[in-house]
Amino acid sequence: MTSSIFDTLTDELSRLPGIGRKTALRLAFSLVDNKDLTKNLSEALRKTCESVVECSVCRNLTEDEICSICADKSRTSGICIVQTPADLRSIEEAGLFRGRYFVLHGQLAPLDGIGPTELGVDRLRKMVEEVSCEEVILALDSTADGDATSAFLARILEGMDVGVSRLARGLPPGASVEFADALTLSQAFEGRQRV
Amino acid sequence: MTSSIFDTLTDELSRLPGIGRKTALRLAFSLVDNKDLTKNLSEALRKTCESVVECSVCRNLTEDEICSICADKSRTSGICIVQTPADLRSIEEAGLFRGRYFVLHGQLAPLDGIGPTELGVDRLRKMVEEVSCEEVILALDSTADGDATSAFLARILEGMDVGVSRLARGLPPGASVEFADALTLSQAFEGRQRV
Repeated sequence: MTSSIFDTLTDELSRLPGIGRKTALRLAFSLVDNKDLTKNLSEALRKTCESVVECSVCRNLTEDEICSICADKSRTSGICIVQTPADLRSIEEAGLFRGRYFVLHGQLAPLDGIGPTELGVDRLRKMVEEVSCEEVILALDSTADGDATSAFLARILEGMDVGVSRLARGLPPGASVEFADALTLSQAFEGRQRV
Repeated sequence: MTSSIFDTLTDELSRLPGIGRKTALRLAFSLVDNKDLTKNLSEALRKTCESVVECSVCRNLTEDEICSICADKSRTSGICIVQTPADLRSIEEAGLFRGRYFVLHGQLAPLDGIGPTELGVDRLRKMVEEVSCEEVILALDSTADGDATSAFLARILEGMDVGVSRLARGLPPGASVEFADALTLSQAFEGRQRV
């Protein structure tokens, strides 16, 4: 191309997850055609970079010292531990839980250097002590790594005066028994409930 | 979400073509996690907004008064008219043409208010006069609108002392006659060549 700025823009766009070279080019060409969007997006990114930080209590994303969920005194029904702010958002949008959250920003992965410090275990302990809730819900992914992280956190919370639970496993709504894999079936059998 | 800046970022991202609400959220969450990328992308967008303009001769994207293709004196084999800078890029990358370009930034669409002025017809005329080339190649999309624009431009260039051609039509490489649609076949018959 005849503009190095344009090439830089394309390069940066192609670093976004799921955006390949071709898509980045298409986005860059459309941005060049839409100066308003380009300006607004640039501003939004600058502000995000400068102002979005982790809540000092629960590690959720916020622009303040403490996020609006932690600041909400009516939220008293326990602490829900999630892996990412995106997970928190999904649970909030479903409107299922009216307590507070703790965001791990990842899952245990010692080989990648993600241990208790990176997951903010000290801050979690402090939060559990201070909030003095009855229940901590582990709402982590239903994967091997998610389970390992849940087990690790359950062990840490064991000594503290709080009940620990994790999300139910089983057939997702709409699933047929015929096509469910063996692991799903085994978890559905294991967690079967009286009717 | 608990951050209005984050929500603004998501909104702006979802205005990009082909980026829906879910993808915008995913991108925003990954940007929050990667401050370097966020900063660089913001900078790239700001610079694009401020510095990328149209070449005063051919309307290609450039950071200077005249783009590097127009400034290249060795490019003498005619003028290739394209709809978008993206089209120009595709032809340049294929390395098929060593002349200059003229970018229309669209195609004729009177109902949408895109007429000769928007396509820069005056500048095209001026360029054709000044470059004094032998051939103008119409490299527009093989669509109804592209054809209408080609026909319009051909009429305008008729009076000028220059040969006008358009890209060949027919079966694309790898296509089978069996599955080609009637229009493709009709164009392939019409444009058949002696072997």
